[in-house]
Amino acid sequence: MHIHIINPNTTASMTQAIHRAAEQQAANGTRVSASQPESGPVSIESHFDEVVSAVGVAEEVLKGEREGGIDAYIVACFGDPGLLSARELTRAPVIGIAEAAFHLATLISTRFSIVTTLGRTGIIAEHLLEQYGFRHHCRRIRAAEIPVLDLEHDPDAAFKRIVAECCRARDEDDIGAIVLGCGGMAGLTQEISREVGIPVVEGVSAALKLAESLVGLGLHTSKHGDLDYPRPKPFTGKFAALSNLQPPRQ
Amino acid sequence: MHIHIINPNTTASMTQAIHRAAEQQAANGTRVSASQPESGPVSIESHFDEVVSAVGVAEEVLKGEREGGIDAYIVACFGDPGLLSARELTRAPVIGIAEAAFHLATLISTRFSIVTTLGRTGIIAEHLLEQYGFRHHCRRIRAAEIPVLDLEHDPDAAFKRIVAECCRARDEDDIGAIVLGCGGMAGLTQEISREVGIPVVEGVSAALKLAESLVGLGLHTSKHGDLDYPRPKPFTGKFAALSNLQPPRQ
Amino acid sequence: MHIHIINPNTTASMTQAIHRAAEQQAANGTRVSASQPESGPVSIESHFDEVVSAVGVAEEVLKGEREGGIDAYIVACFGDPGLLSARELTRAPVIGIAEAAFHLATLISTRFSIVTTLGRTGIIAEHLLEQYGFRHHCRRIRAAEIPVLDLEHDPDAAFKRIVAECCRARDEDDIGAIVLGCGGMAGLTQEISREVGIPVVEGVSAALKLAESLVGLGLHTSKHGDLDYPRPKPFTGKFAALSNLQPPRQ
Amino acid sequence: MHIHIINPNTTASMTQAIHRAAEQQAANGTRVSASQPESGPVSIESHFDEVVSAVGVAEEVLKGEREGGIDAYIVACFGDPGLLSARELTRAPVIGIAEAAFHLATLISTRFSIVTTLGRTGIIAEHLLEQYGFRHHCRRIRAAEIPVLDLEHDPDAAFKRIVAECCRARDEDDIGAIVLGCGGMAGLTQEISREVGIPVVEGVSAALKLAESLVGLGLHTSKHGDLDYPRPKPFTGKFAALSNLQPPRQ
Amino acid sequence: MHIHIINPNTTASMTQAIHRAAEQQAANGTRVSASQPESGPVSIESHFDEVVSAVGVAEEVLKGEREGGIDAYIVACFGDPGLLSARELTRAPVIGIAEAAFHLATLISTRFSIVTTLGRTGIIAEHLLEQYGFRHHCRRIRAAEIPVLDLEHDPDAAFKRIVAECCRARDEDDIGAIVLGCGGMAGLTQEISREVGIPVVEGVSAALKLAESLVGLGLHTSKHGDLDYPRPKPFTGKFAALSNLQPPRQ
Amino acid sequence: MHIHIINPNTTASMTQAIHRAAEQQAANGTRVSASQPESGPVSIESHFDEVVSAVGVAEEVLKGEREGGIDAYIVACFGDPGLLSARELTRAPVIGIAEAAFHLATLISTRFSIVTTLGRTGIIAEHLLEQYGFRHHCRRIRAAEIPVLDLEHDPDAAFKRIVAECCRARDEDDIGAIVLGCGGMAGLTQEISREVGIPVVEGVSAALKLAESLVGLGLHTSKHGDLDYPRPKPFTGKFAALSNLQPPRQ
Repeated sequence: MHIHIINPNTTASMTQAIHRAAEQQAANGTRVSASQPESGPVSIESHFDEVVSAVGVAEEVLKGEREGGIDAYIVACFGDPGLLSARELTRAPVIGIAEAAFHLATLISTRFSIVTTLGRTGIIAEHLLEQYGFRHHCRRIRAAEIPVLDLEHDPDAAFKRIVAECCRARDEDDIGAIVLGCGGMAGLTQEISREVGIPVVEGVSAALKLAESLVGLGLHTSKHGDLDYPRPKPFTGKFAALSNLQPPRQ
Repeated sequence: MHIHIINPNTTASMTQAIHRAAEQQAANGTRVSASQPESGPVSIESHFDEVVSAVGVAEEVLKGEREGGIDAYIVACFGDPGLLSARELTRAPVIGIAEAAFHLATLISTRFSIVTTLGRTGIIAEHLLEQYGFRHHCRRIRAAEIPVLDLEHDPDAAFKRIVAECCRARDEDDIGAIVLGCGGMAGLTQEISREVGIPVVEGVSAALKLAESLVGLGLHTSKHGDLDYPRPKPFTGKFAALSNLQPPRQ
Repeated sequence: MHIHIINPNTTASMTQAIHRAAEQQAANGTRVSASQPESGPVSIESHFDEVVSAVGVAEEVLKGEREGGIDAYIVACFGDPGLLSARELTRAPVIGIAEAAFHLATLISTRFSIVTTLGRTGIIAEHLLEQYGFRHHCRRIRAAEIPVLDLEHDPDAAFKRIVAECCRARDEDDIGAIVLGCGGMAGLTQEISREVGIPVVEGVSAALKLAESLVGLGLHTSKHGDLDYPRPKPFTGKFAALSNLQPPRQ
Repeated sequence: MHIHIINPNTTASMTQAIHRAAEQQAANGTRVSASQPESGPVSIESHFDEVVSAVGVAEEVLKGEREGGIDAYIVACFGDPGLLSARELTRAPVIGIAEAAFHLATLISTRFSIVTTLGRTGIIAEHLLEQYGFRHHCRRIRAAEIPVLDLEHDPDAAFKRIVAECCRARDEDDIGAIVLGCGGMAGLTQEISREVGIPVVEGVSAALKLAESLVGLGLHTSKHGDLDYPRPKPFTGKFAALSNLQPPRQ
Repeated sequence: MHIHIINPNTTASMTQAIHRAAEQQAANGTRVSASQPESGPVSIESHFDEVVSAVGVAEEVLKGEREGGIDAYIVACFGDPGLLSARELTRAPVIGIAEAAFHLATLISTRFSIVTTLGRTGIIAEHLLEQYGFRHHCRRIRAAEIPVLDLEHDPDAAFKRIVAECCRARDEDDIGAIVLGCGGMAGLTQEISREVGIPVVEGVSAALKLAESLVGLGLHTSKHGDLDYPRPKPFTGKFAALSNLQPPRQ
Repeated sequence: MHIHIINPNTTASMTQAIHRAAEQQAANGTRVSASQPESGPVSIESHFDEVVSAVGVAEEVLKGEREGGIDAYIVACFGDPGLLSARELTRAPVIGIAEAAFHLATLISTRFSIVTTLGRTGIIAEHLLEQYGFRHHCRRIRAAEIPVLDLEHDPDAAFKRIVAECCRARDEDDIGAIVLGCGGMAGLTQEISREVGIPVVEGVSAALKLAESLVGLGLHTSKHGDLDYPRPKPFTGKFAALSNLQPPRQ
């Protein structure tokens, strides 16, 4: 089984960190690869960053489809940028790390809180909770107010602030579990969990397991209805390479 | 990894069928066992049947905890009877087959329909959809109007009716996937899927994969807050054996 | 008119207290009886306790139906355990004390808060509010953090803590009424109400009045659709006596 | 106990019919009176009719408060016109017949449909269902398309159309009970129920019983918060008599 | 284009202030007129005040229709009293100032708070948010706890309290914009906005612009379905003048 | 006042048609300009098309900001692609045509239906309705099943199918208005409306009026909170030009 992780931002070191974290969780027989788009923002901290990164996600899926052999994709940014678009481009399952974390959190607790990086991205999580159906399962969205790349540049300080916010969530929010709201926290989950002492769900590993689950069951993205392959058509300018994508013959 | 499936009804042949279906889907290294309660209804087709079976589920979890070595439990009836109660009794993850099927269906389609056995159990699924957050992801709950045990007694007729209802869902409901609404359909999933031609999600195998996922990630049922072990206390009469359950020393 | 109250826990002294509280509220011509299951937990403070008690509720309804002459049943635990199951077993109305309190509270205020015993049972009330439709009518679920049986063992201390929490609800929650979240508080309602100075709704008396209402109107539990009598079938083991229940001839 | 029914329209014969229907359902010891506003529409079939009738409802409550001795009020039009306003004007409970019917219907069935007079009033019921929390308990709002006063002028034809629509609801809507959506149907409930064969809930009698319930329990409309007596102030023109209403000394 | 503003209370000085505020915002070519009902409360601070004022709103619309030449109406009280009734009475668009403010606030922010006059009117706003669909877009309803007419009698003190509450909303509520919850604040918007430093949306001007928008597009209140002209019928007593209103010939 | 319309697809003839339709509706003194991205899909009929077009929308906003003098932007594709991202990039209001049409439709009717091009895009509208709060105001999403560019290539056939679907909506859906679900229908609104005979709301003109409204009121996109300018940062590859965008000095 081959699962490919797409880090939607273009910071290769973060891709590697995510890749490492995922490989540690992969089942025997699961091959994990990872890439980031050639083009896009170095971190995703706004709707604008997300919009640009979503194109990168699509391109990485298309690249994967051309190369073949990929059984599932993971979109490793907590806003799940371009998730439904990515699903249209392949029969393979595509899992977002936000949705993955939400799903698993509801299986081990009745209510959870999210601890994310910047407060301004809270609205993205809020919209996802609404769309996915988990609005009432999430008690609160909290932000440690650290820029995403500080997870790499100043990991100790970031770690402390995240743990502190997680502890506040544990003590004040009437919850059973915490969802970490950033792919960049993937490598820190075990340690955070140890400090906080209640289940901490992180999306990359959660998505990996959900991807393994779907592939294991032979379940693919439905091509009946609204996730079918996009109608082939011309694209112009710097997106010309996306023109007339032909769905695979089945 | 040892995953134990609890068939909440007391029909051993159905336990075996569910066990077989699950084993075919288990990952390498996953040991699957299955049992049914000593006491309870032979099938579950009403709130009343469910209420009684939920005690059996609890007792099977307690038995598993006494024996030890079980990493996760599955509650293999589509109403998820006694699910939150079971979660209180163990640190191991406990997965219901209805929730499992709903979760996976939303990962491969935007909207799904349920095809269940008897129409009168539709309200149980409806209440679960509300509680889990998937009310708007499910377009319609359909019933093939076959009693649960007919899945065993008259499998060919049952199969035909289920397939016919699935095809109607596919053609009329504006959906991408179908959720099979009965644990007893576990063995038929592949065939149904082949006939219907769109993704068909069945709960037993879905729950197995979610259980493998949580165990693989080291995630356990939260003991912080409302899923903590029940307070030990006396039980009377035929439930006296449930008295003064002590939470394990950690 | 004969209304039978089922105290779902097995503490006879609590049954008596509930019985007394109800009798004081009964209309002329209403006979109130009360019982508790032979088997089950001495108090209900978890999903697990609830699951076991729901069987007791069913058995008490069946006993009532065998004996005959009962016009309505009340399930006198704030989680409404086994309510829909009980409704399947009889044409008589069956009222839960949580639903009863919610319904009446919305008739005399626009928003209410709940004051219950232990915080861990808050999720049970939360799920009921969702299922019944009152999620937005309840501002907050508060817990006095007293075990249920302390209402009997240390009533003075319990009373003080409940009143204190009710006063906080009155002053902070932007509400018009308070719902008491435990059947064991039935005898204290008047006193609490006097201390708090705003309407306090208690479920046992509320359910009694709703039961009288339905019986008075000749309205019975619908046997058209999903609350019809369960299909008769074998039950095994300690539940064998539930086998092949025949719906009454009409 | 004295319960006063306000028929919000000004058709005295309809007031009498409602009064008669209510008296047949009243408990021993309950005195039922009824009135209609001096000013207002002869029937209520639009938002506009409702707005005007709501003033009449307020005036009838004020008249009742001046006369004294009334323990509860009923607003006997299915749109519950002026209900919250009426509650502000008195400590006595005030019950609307729509809310009353919805509440009782959810106690004897899991889902219901409404059969009302004119389709154009469906939106009024829809808004009430939303506000009260019963949106998902009501499967469908159906109209017999008969003007309200035809219930008086051509009762036989009206009866036939209502029964026909109720039967369609019973057979097509996956429900357990029917709510009659017009106060003018109060006298027909028994007969309709007999024809349709499933529980039929009518609001006038339902409201009577809920009023008896609240009075019996000593529960009054909360004067803590947003249902408190209106601040006294000048009213001009034809509403000058409403000026400077003083809340009663308590 | 002629837009007529109805101040639902009877305080002419407030009508003038609203009129002035609106005229400052009117487009070239828009004529703005304003009136208040002949009969009704001098301010609207309760459901009761609202109910009476809604009749005045209807009468002002009817007067406008008789006189002719009005292209749109505005109902200038934050509870939108009698809005749907007013829409029934005319083909012209009718806009409430609460709905107008909500609509525009969601176009410039993702979440907003409301700052209103008296806390007791919060429930009115809450019900409107539910009916209009904006429940989740509003983080919090805050009250400056000033009676409506104090906006006229003691404007400086009122201004300070409103600004203080707006600043708390800005700093504590995780919002992007503030909605002013009273028509009487129309003249203060600019100044408040300057003090608070984030977008402040006021309903009168918002409604004016929405009215201009609809008229500009040739969109009228739908007469297909539930907003059609009311069925003509007799009205009695002081409302006799409302009898047998004939819809205009088209 | 200068309002700039961004047609998110790259078909210049469609931009011109939209421009023409908008200019006909513009107020005196409103200058309307229009453009389409240099790069992107020729039509938008899938999540994938949408994702790519959202970058074009951002780039067109950035171009507008560099050039200066634009008071508001319109995103003229019914899925509102990149709307929140666009709002981050400017203080000017940005209006999507789907949201605009929904907002105005609720002002002239209580319930509406959408008639769109391809059924597969229905899910996009469904998600927007949820996010904006209009889920319950929309009765049904209907598709004429015509590809977007057929609106240009075969306008007569397209027109007939749209009208036919609108008439079905009018007759079957219990609605007061219809929302046209494609920017390409802008030029046809008047004619469709004439054929269908009930209010038909089209998004381009609706958005134009809402943009005029906000600009007229001096309301800008909130820069307090989550719509603030994105944090400047490097972008790589073909998006390098988006690097280090500096918010304007204020």
